[in-house]
Amino acid sequence: MSFSSERVSSAAGRVFLVGAGPGDPGAITLRAVDCLRRADLVLYDYLVNPVLLEHAAAAERVCLGHHHTGRLVSQDQINACMIRSAAQGKMVVRLKAGDPCVFGHVAEEVAALRAAGVNYEIVPGITAGLAAGGYVEIPVTHGERASALALITGHQRVEKEQPPLDYAALAGFPGTLVFYMGVSSAAQWSEALIDGGRSPQTAVAIVRRCSWPDQHTLRCTLGTVAETIAREKVRPPAVIVVGDVVGLAPELSWFAARPLSGRRVLVTRP
Amino acid sequence: MSFSSERVSSAAGRVFLVGAGPGDPGAITLRAVDCLRRADLVLYDYLVNPVLLEHAAAAERVCLGHHHTGRLVSQDQINACMIRSAAQGKMVVRLKAGDPCVFGHVAEEVAALRAAGVNYEIVPGITAGLAAGGYVEIPVTHGERASALALITGHQRVEKEQPPLDYAALAGFPGTLVFYMGVSSAAQWSEALIDGGRSPQTAVAIVRRCSWPDQHTLRCTLGTVAETIAREKVRPPAVIVVGDVVGLAPELSWFAARPLSGRRVLVTRP
Repeated sequence: MSFSSERVSSAAGRVFLVGAGPGDPGAITLRAVDCLRRADLVLYDYLVNPVLLEHAAAAERVCLGHHHTGRLVSQDQINACMIRSAAQGKMVVRLKAGDPCVFGHVAEEVAALRAAGVNYEIVPGITAGLAAGGYVEIPVTHGERASALALITGHQRVEKEQPPLDYAALAGFPGTLVFYMGVSSAAQWSEALIDGGRSPQTAVAIVRRCSWPDQHTLRCTLGTVAETIAREKVRPPAVIVVGDVVGLAPELSWFAARPLSGRRVLVTRP
Repeated sequence: MSFSSERVSSAAGRVFLVGAGPGDPGAITLRAVDCLRRADLVLYDYLVNPVLLEHAAAAERVCLGHHHTGRLVSQDQINACMIRSAAQGKMVVRLKAGDPCVFGHVAEEVAALRAAGVNYEIVPGITAGLAAGGYVEIPVTHGERASALALITGHQRVEKEQPPLDYAALAGFPGTLVFYMGVSSAAQWSEALIDGGRSPQTAVAIVRRCSWPDQHTLRCTLGTVAETIAREKVRPPAVIVVGDVVGLAPELSWFAARPLSGRRVLVTRP
């Protein structure tokens, strides 16, 4: 395997851009498992549950590091490796945590594959922000309380020419807000939402490692989320749910309460 | 099986609130299949792909009709049936299209199960609005173009005491909007978004039967979505994606272009 940037056109192999889901080994799709079983090469992000790689026992398996920080391999190198391997007739799985279409850079990878004439398939996965509905029992949509739900990245790179997110508009969003990659930027986005008119009393849940054995939920408010993260030394990966519906979740979800659960939900009141 | 409303407390059986995914038989999770295989009774919505019921060949299988219109069985009756069957020691699967936590009334069903002391588990599925990212290749989030994504129901029942959605706030949302159950209400929500300041030129994709063999995508604009639905006689189920990212999708996605695809993507320009 090589990560050199040389391009090779091909129609021989195939690349599968696959979502691994949030972490629970049962929360991966049949199609994703089928792809892993047939793979010659698996290029996976470090957030993927390594248990899932057992479906690809016969494949070469390469960890690519994190999406944003400490990446070991650049996006151009990943693209070149996928294209070269497909040209060699390989079945390549690009395995990403969650859903490749939700903050997963799938558009950039597809553009490179299309330009090189490589056949590909996208295999959706369950995204962590919605998994918090199932595993923590936060009703992220609710018949009476939340007719809309927003997924937002808390990680906008400052070097981009993109304008910053319009937090005043987000503050007025008529529903639940779910932040991805928002741990280190919590002070910024929570203050911006409050400045935009969202109540500092709005309920917040910080859901770390959703659906993993050590899933861990901290409850606080929009006004205390940044200090809660600092005090509890919360590290990524986490999704952060903002909205009244957080208050409707039971203290112990079916998942946190199940027998053999590694760690119970820790409830921290603001 | 009975749908009478009599309550029976129980800890013997178990209820699984399971997402079937958008329709593709490969887009269901391992855990969902495991639940179906062990089920004694499957209560399923009519939008579920019937092929998936083959995983529950040994179970009694009952179709419950649509969530909102023409429902054959009321929510109270469904709750009573789940509770009674669990009390009889049965493994019950409540199978819903998509993700039970996204506009799936899971909070109401969980509340009834908790009140009756019935053990339950929630099994997330892939929701149709995000599946449009994978199967139609609309980059619903995008590094440069969409740092946020909203899922919205187009079906707010007027009899509810809930205030109507704040469309002016939605119009200012800094990202992609995806409407569920928005076909029959398209004239209302599209006009409200335009009145709120969203450009009538905003790109729109109407994705019907996402991930099914007859998946069908119509492209138009926010200003023409209602007339497009009327002219093309679009019927539910469909998700409707509103945002500049629609213009980044290829005319023929990998899924629509695949061999044996039942029906090619039909592109209708405004």
